[in-house]
Amino acid sequence: MEVGKRAPAPLVEPSLEALMSGGKRLRPLLLVLCAGMGVSDRESLLKAATAIEVLHTATLIHDDIVDGAESRRGVPTAVAKYGREIAVATGDYLFAETFSELAEIGDARIVRSFAEASEGLASGELEQYRSNGVVVDVEEYLEHIKLKTAGLFKVACVAGGTLGRLTIRQVDALATYGQALGIAFQMSDDIMDLVGKPGLMGKGIGADLIEGTVTLPVIFALREGDEKTIRRVLEDPEPSPESIEAGIEAVLATDAIVKTEAWANGEIDAAIADLDFLPDCPEREFLEMVASEVVGREV
Amino acid sequence: MEVGKRAPAPLVEPSLEALMSGGKRLRPLLLVLCAGMGVSDRESLLKAATAIEVLHTATLIHDDIVDGAESRRGVPTAVAKYGREIAVATGDYLFAETFSELAEIGDARIVRSFAEASEGLASGELEQYRSNGVVVDVEEYLEHIKLKTAGLFKVACVAGGTLGRLTIRQVDALATYGQALGIAFQMSDDIMDLVGKPGLMGKGIGADLIEGTVTLPVIFALREGDEKTIRRVLEDPEPSPESIEAGIEAVLATDAIVKTEAWANGEIDAAIADLDFLPDCPEREFLEMVASEVVGREV
Repeated sequence: MEVGKRAPAPLVEPSLEALMSGGKRLRPLLLVLCAGMGVSDRESLLKAATAIEVLHTATLIHDDIVDGAESRRGVPTAVAKYGREIAVATGDYLFAETFSELAEIGDARIVRSFAEASEGLASGELEQYRSNGVVVDVEEYLEHIKLKTAGLFKVACVAGGTLGRLTIRQVDALATYGQALGIAFQMSDDIMDLVGKPGLMGKGIGADLIEGTVTLPVIFALREGDEKTIRRVLEDPEPSPESIEAGIEAVLATDAIVKTEAWANGEIDAAIADLDFLPDCPEREFLEMVASEVVGREV
Repeated sequence: MEVGKRAPAPLVEPSLEALMSGGKRLRPLLLVLCAGMGVSDRESLLKAATAIEVLHTATLIHDDIVDGAESRRGVPTAVAKYGREIAVATGDYLFAETFSELAEIGDARIVRSFAEASEGLASGELEQYRSNGVVVDVEEYLEHIKLKTAGLFKVACVAGGTLGRLTIRQVDALATYGQALGIAFQMSDDIMDLVGKPGLMGKGIGADLIEGTVTLPVIFALREGDEKTIRRVLEDPEPSPESIEAGIEAVLATDAIVKTEAWANGEIDAAIADLDFLPDCPEREFLEMVASEVVGREV
């Protein structure tokens, strides 16, 4: 990948660090799989797959400024390491790179779908910041995660299907698949924040609770559990380790995780059902597999 | 203009404030004039003209975060009024809006030239931040302003010419015109920071000196004037009013302003000379007029 290396000298390091920091490349994988169900141009596909990962990275860098996050995937964030000035410019640069890559494909529909997803990402980023510490309801939660997480999954699938020259009906089905998958992915992420990684002992770190981000399991737990203890963590800008521990315990003492898992599984079922509109091929099987494993997060 | 109004509720206010804060709309004007020398589609032209002003606005919002600027055009900046979180998201949103507008035109060349200009803007934004307080040379100064200022003027002219279906030769001439105009515009801005607005009494406010931004007149003055006094303001993160006053006086005591004006006029002559490749029409006369007035900044 040439991206990042072409950046001006002071941006190369933060760009490459962010791009290479060990994400799962799930979005480019989805894009390539969706395109593989039809016939696509290899060069265009590579550019679009690069663009989606670069856009995702740009978003993470700016999200970390908005959230004041110190580390991500175990390494310091760009804002923590280089300061907000370089982090703003690096995100802007990668954002511009995204559209540079897309422009070379020469298909206005692809540019349009990425631009719309980007608008959603910026809105979602802000909505979530604004609602930190505020107890949102399920509807608001879904609205945020559709914009912030599911939008990129959806555009990966739509761009892939478009480049693969699938029918409008098929691309629509992929859009629905991508959105449902993104929603399930985010719910699974919300659970992991509370229970830790699957297969590992112990609890999660409660980063969402600390930031005051009200996720789906937290919404459920507030309704049926020790509301006072949970609210205390959410509303405290700097909760103590004991308070965080108590908050996580209070959520885990309810059915919140089970309910969230059930919802995520429902989304996955819907996602897979939509794949019926697609040709029966190895890529479709792989997309089904991706969907079933997202909740276990082995992907 | 629908832009900004379509933004999610919390972004409408900062978006509209930034878009409506009384800029001179010079970039969309250039775009429309360049397109007017050929034959263009009205709808596409409107979208491109909107896109260039929206991109310019997005850049200003993020620049103000990088520079920590408190006010612009006499009103508080988005970062000062709403905080850096909302300012980051608003800039991102407007950036996405830019490419949304452009995607609807359906011409990959337009998207490509905007994306390249955006890369330059992000690089220039960062380069300038990194060199605050550092005495750059003329070559570095020119590199910064080509990226940060002239790039948008150039893309306005190129996009206009492309939409007007001018020949490649003509679009190239407009690119040269736009770049030279942008360079002259920035030099004129640098002068105004030291001598104040043309036609008004008194000195400028020395904002560049205070920020530690070494502009062309300052480079000249450092060579031939009271270097110690000027360096003192540049290197002091919070210079006193007396120190700023002394710094401005030290620059004005040299030929720095005259030399910078001469350079800017040279750029303007080059810009106008390039217009010879364009058809003789009212738009071309207007472009010549814009160029001659940029140094006086009556435009």
